[in-house]
Amino acid sequence: MSLLVVGSVAFDALETPYGKVDRTLGGAATYFALAASCFTHVRLVGVVGDDFTERDREVFRGRKIDTEGLEHANGKTFFWAGRYGKDPNDRVTLVTELNVFAQFQPNLPQSYRDSAYVFLANIDPTLQRSVLHQIERRPKLVALDTMNYWIERTPAELQETLKHTQILMINDDETRQLAAEHNLLRAAARIFKMGPRTLVIKRGEHGAMMVHNRFIFSVPAFPLEEVHDPTGAGDSFAGGFMGYLAGAGRINDNTLRRAMVYGSVLGSFAVERFGVERLRKLTRKEIGQRARRFWKLTAFSL
Amino acid sequence: MSLLVVGSVAFDALETPYGKVDRTLGGAATYFALAASCFTHVRLVGVVGDDFTERDREVFRGRKIDTEGLEHANGKTFFWAGRYGKDPNDRVTLVTELNVFAQFQPNLPQSYRDSAYVFLANIDPTLQRSVLHQIERRPKLVALDTMNYWIERTPAELQETLKHTQILMINDDETRQLAAEHNLLRAAARIFKMGPRTLVIKRGEHGAMMVHNRFIFSVPAFPLEEVHDPTGAGDSFAGGFMGYLAGAGRINDNTLRRAMVYGSVLGSFAVERFGVERLRKLTRKEIGQRARRFWKLTAFSL
Repeated sequence: MSLLVVGSVAFDALETPYGKVDRTLGGAATYFALAASCFTHVRLVGVVGDDFTERDREVFRGRKIDTEGLEHANGKTFFWAGRYGKDPNDRVTLVTELNVFAQFQPNLPQSYRDSAYVFLANIDPTLQRSVLHQIERRPKLVALDTMNYWIERTPAELQETLKHTQILMINDDETRQLAAEHNLLRAAARIFKMGPRTLVIKRGEHGAMMVHNRFIFSVPAFPLEEVHDPTGAGDSFAGGFMGYLAGAGRINDNTLRRAMVYGSVLGSFAVERFGVERLRKLTRKEIGQRARRFWKLTAFSL
Repeated sequence: MSLLVVGSVAFDALETPYGKVDRTLGGAATYFALAASCFTHVRLVGVVGDDFTERDREVFRGRKIDTEGLEHANGKTFFWAGRYGKDPNDRVTLVTELNVFAQFQPNLPQSYRDSAYVFLANIDPTLQRSVLHQIERRPKLVALDTMNYWIERTPAELQETLKHTQILMINDDETRQLAAEHNLLRAAARIFKMGPRTLVIKRGEHGAMMVHNRFIFSVPAFPLEEVHDPTGAGDSFAGGFMGYLAGAGRINDNTLRRAMVYGSVLGSFAVERFGVERLRKLTRKEIGQRARRFWKLTAFSL
């Protein structure tokens, strides 16, 4: 079924212990769309500047990604520069230039307005809500990412948007901050009172945990010998998760568990190379193989 | 089959966000023995002082724990005082008084010298090796814990002891320190060259990972709403792990995976109450129930 993503498209400059790139296509919506398009048709909403060329757009071509909603504005594309240490969690932001993204007003093409699955990447919660207002029928599933900036600066707006959200996908620090509670289970219970019925906690190298009304599901990160570039891991996870669910067209305990696994699979591939390089080359066969390796990594009988 | 544990028996003073106790029986060998005795017969080697009374010994009575090897020395029992923050990883040591433990020389009673399964808790690697010399037949399985102190202060002695070890059970920081390598998979490969063929990495609230020649297995920590006292979690994990293996009497992929789960089960119970309180009351039925909950926490089908 149709999957809409709204979020950033950016150019990134990245430095990790494995190398350095000065300018590569990134942004949450880019990683998400590439990951999700392995499973289903994706509709992309974002904004880029004059410096975004036809060659950059090539990334989305030949995949199930509709870019009608990728707006071109006057000015430069969102630019982010960051450096990672040996520990992928040690991230230093060197430059953030919002550029055209500062004035971003998501505008859904008419053909997007019947989207059944919606992912609102980490942007201003007011803009996230404006996306939902443009959708004509109540979507089957709305999932949302956010960050400390919005939790601290626009708490009332975020709370209002959370009322319309079924799945909240954030990391463990954000979970604790949003709920003002250190224990993740108790934090989840508080977050359920804000609207979401499902919380997906992304924990980087420690995997991910889903807390849902009826069950808790935990999946480890895939052990890798080399993490070349951690950028986009969380957004690729979200893309694999939502892409799988939208492709399956059913939301139940089994598909939610599988979505967690496919999210982890896509996140694990994303970090193997710089930027979106690995996701671009990824095949369905490789995805299936790695999902089975996740099974071997976690399966036991009693 | 017979399981030998050699390690500390101590009195602990503990302070956590859930309360405070001034003196409770603790120590690695105590937690290990209580956990392992849920599965198999345990032989305990350690040392206590004059202040260790018949009432303290009650903890081991009525369980499958042989305390013939628990030596009584003149002086006071090892005493440790610590405080934990809201985050169970925030641990501050307030007092360490080694007392009779400072002169500990493990001495195996004759009846222990045919032990097939051996767990060497975190003590001086020279003493760990002296235990192995006292065992008459080559044990079926030797597992070992250690810590930064020995990795830094007695590296040559530790290396010598590791040559006689099949399973090394340490935490992620210790893994990285011992191997001088941040990536855990590459660290495991280096550790395998030191002797062990299996590495069990304990990661606290993030669960545990086993790296073995033929496979990697990962198990999450059991999500708990309240961690009353994290003391002894790792030793209870080791006890559940080794106790299950010794009880099963077979070491293969399936029993190793199950051992990881039962280790996690015992670790998760240990932290629910202060000191060894929860382990003392634990039933086989509760263990089985929680193991099934671990299955539900991690199971998926593709």
